[in-house]
Amino acid sequence: MKLSSLRTPLRDGQLIVVSRDLSRAVAVPAVAPTLQAALDDWERMEPKLREVSDALNAGGKLDNVFAFDVSKLAAPLPRAYHWVDGSAYVNHVELVRKARGAQMPETFWTDPLVYQGGSDDFLGPCDDVPVPSEEFGIDLEGEIAVITDDVPMRTTHDAAGSHIKLLMLVNDWSLRNLIPGELAKGFGFYQSKPATAFSPVAVTPDELGAAWSHSTLQRPLTVHVNDELFGRPNAGMDMTFDFARLIEHITKTRNARAGTILGSGTISNYDRSLGSACIAERRMLEQLEHGKPITPFLKFGDRVRIEMFDEEGRSIFGAIDQRVVRA
Amino acid sequence: MKLSSLRTPLRDGQLIVVSRDLSRAVAVPAVAPTLQAALDDWERMEPKLREVSDALNAGGKLDNVFAFDVSKLAAPLPRAYHWVDGSAYVNHVELVRKARGAQMPETFWTDPLVYQGGSDDFLGPCDDVPVPSEEFGIDLEGEIAVITDDVPMRTTHDAAGSHIKLLMLVNDWSLRNLIPGELAKGFGFYQSKPATAFSPVAVTPDELGAAWSHSTLQRPLTVHVNDELFGRPNAGMDMTFDFARLIEHITKTRNARAGTILGSGTISNYDRSLGSACIAERRMLEQLEHGKPITPFLKFGDRVRIEMFDEEGRSIFGAIDQRVVRA
Repeated sequence: MKLSSLRTPLRDGQLIVVSRDLSRAVAVPAVAPTLQAALDDWERMEPKLREVSDALNAGGKLDNVFAFDVSKLAAPLPRAYHWVDGSAYVNHVELVRKARGAQMPETFWTDPLVYQGGSDDFLGPCDDVPVPSEEFGIDLEGEIAVITDDVPMRTTHDAAGSHIKLLMLVNDWSLRNLIPGELAKGFGFYQSKPATAFSPVAVTPDELGAAWSHSTLQRPLTVHVNDELFGRPNAGMDMTFDFARLIEHITKTRNARAGTILGSGTISNYDRSLGSACIAERRMLEQLEHGKPITPFLKFGDRVRIEMFDEEGRSIFGAIDQRVVRA
Repeated sequence: MKLSSLRTPLRDGQLIVVSRDLSRAVAVPAVAPTLQAALDDWERMEPKLREVSDALNAGGKLDNVFAFDVSKLAAPLPRAYHWVDGSAYVNHVELVRKARGAQMPETFWTDPLVYQGGSDDFLGPCDDVPVPSEEFGIDLEGEIAVITDDVPMRTTHDAAGSHIKLLMLVNDWSLRNLIPGELAKGFGFYQSKPATAFSPVAVTPDELGAAWSHSTLQRPLTVHVNDELFGRPNAGMDMTFDFARLIEHITKTRNARAGTILGSGTISNYDRSLGSACIAERRMLEQLEHGKPITPFLKFGDRVRIEMFDEEGRSIFGAIDQRVVRA
């Protein structure tokens, strides 16, 4: 099942069910007005939404089916109560440290690292990305995220997987030149993480078939910058902490409530031939190889496209395709 | 105007208008079902809510008025899209550093420090506080918070004040023994900040009269631990960054959307005779005076009460009055 949210005058948009091939969609006001409303009562809502989805995919008789148009979308959750992003590809974290000549603590291989992001103002998949200054070091971060139902405090790895209800792609926009100063203050990111963007649709795990395995998504993420292939790292490779382990981590002292969005962190593979899912990583590799970074961060007008294809080359989530603009 | 949320089977509770003396209340389903709904359309909603509030305070004819009972409340916003907490009393931050023999950077006096907290699962004012282990170092943090309407990116200090629509008290529960390990990882708090609690009512700034001045609240916050007065620091004293300055900070690279909750950080005064609004600060003062901390962190069964009174001794927000329990 694939779900999406139309932009409307209402802040949470309108929930729509989208056909597997991303060609057609239908609103479901009789089931749930918004994706958050569906997640708030998922056990009861999911079968009803699946009925609509099955009929839509079978080409059955449904009223008010319309052509799916990504330009009319908000993020699947236009705003959320909880957006927590991991750094599950520890290879990436190790590279960051290596590039600045610092050792990474051994515990980073066993204890996940997460930060909490802004969730009151998400960007839709085709929204412009407003940034006040190019001097901030504008960068993308290509990631996977899951959406959970209610996860109680102290959920174990074994119990965590069943709480994953939907998956999306993420561009966790980052302002690299604001990060060192902000992290030096000791409380983590805030200004250095502007609004985050999500893929056109969120999909249930069964849509991924065998590619969804052990709470990891075994497919490459394709990243283009200005129509040039930037990287194609595999989200299922080198993920030190799977999503179930991340859920265990975030519920050590808290409940995670329905609609929690949990990100993987920038996808990063040891196989450097696959490229990167952020400019910072490529710059670190350049630093290590050439003694200095070469690839610049993004400028106003630059475009970033993030997408994932199934084995037959069909887009699973639709593309995040955005342009950076002056705020 | 004083607003509150009754706990109901719905996750966002039911918005109620409460009388100034906190004795009576009335639901307003014809105006707005929830506080978030009111905040989403505040300009249109506020006058309607004020009409009800004025009638309630005048003892006028209103249907279905009931006795206000704090035991039936959720937090004013039972969940929110954005909870960002400052460290506006830099005296407190300086003390933390001094107690561990570290220098505080000079920029801490000019550049606010904030972290983003969990907002999907707030505690009501009388809810038990579930913690997995006493070994986590259970502590309170007495604070003030404001709730804003939509604040656009790059809002200046001068323009920020008018976005403050409501104020509340906060207990920003903290797990002190998890903090050093978590901050050492560099991404700020997550596990060390369990669910946050808020006062019974949120009030509009005009309810505070002259005590609300220059985006600061000039009243003492009264903190009791197990019925013993723990501290009575004045929220209007030694606040290095007023709420307008904090709003300017949090909108440098983002919009803050309606219903953003922005906290002051633990209230802390240079006048040590006023006591502290968290145990960690008292322990730091003990460390500096006696060479070691003396006051223990909280145990299961301990109670914490946080309240603020007006000049005539009337409770403004009602009391946060909670008991720590094993999760």
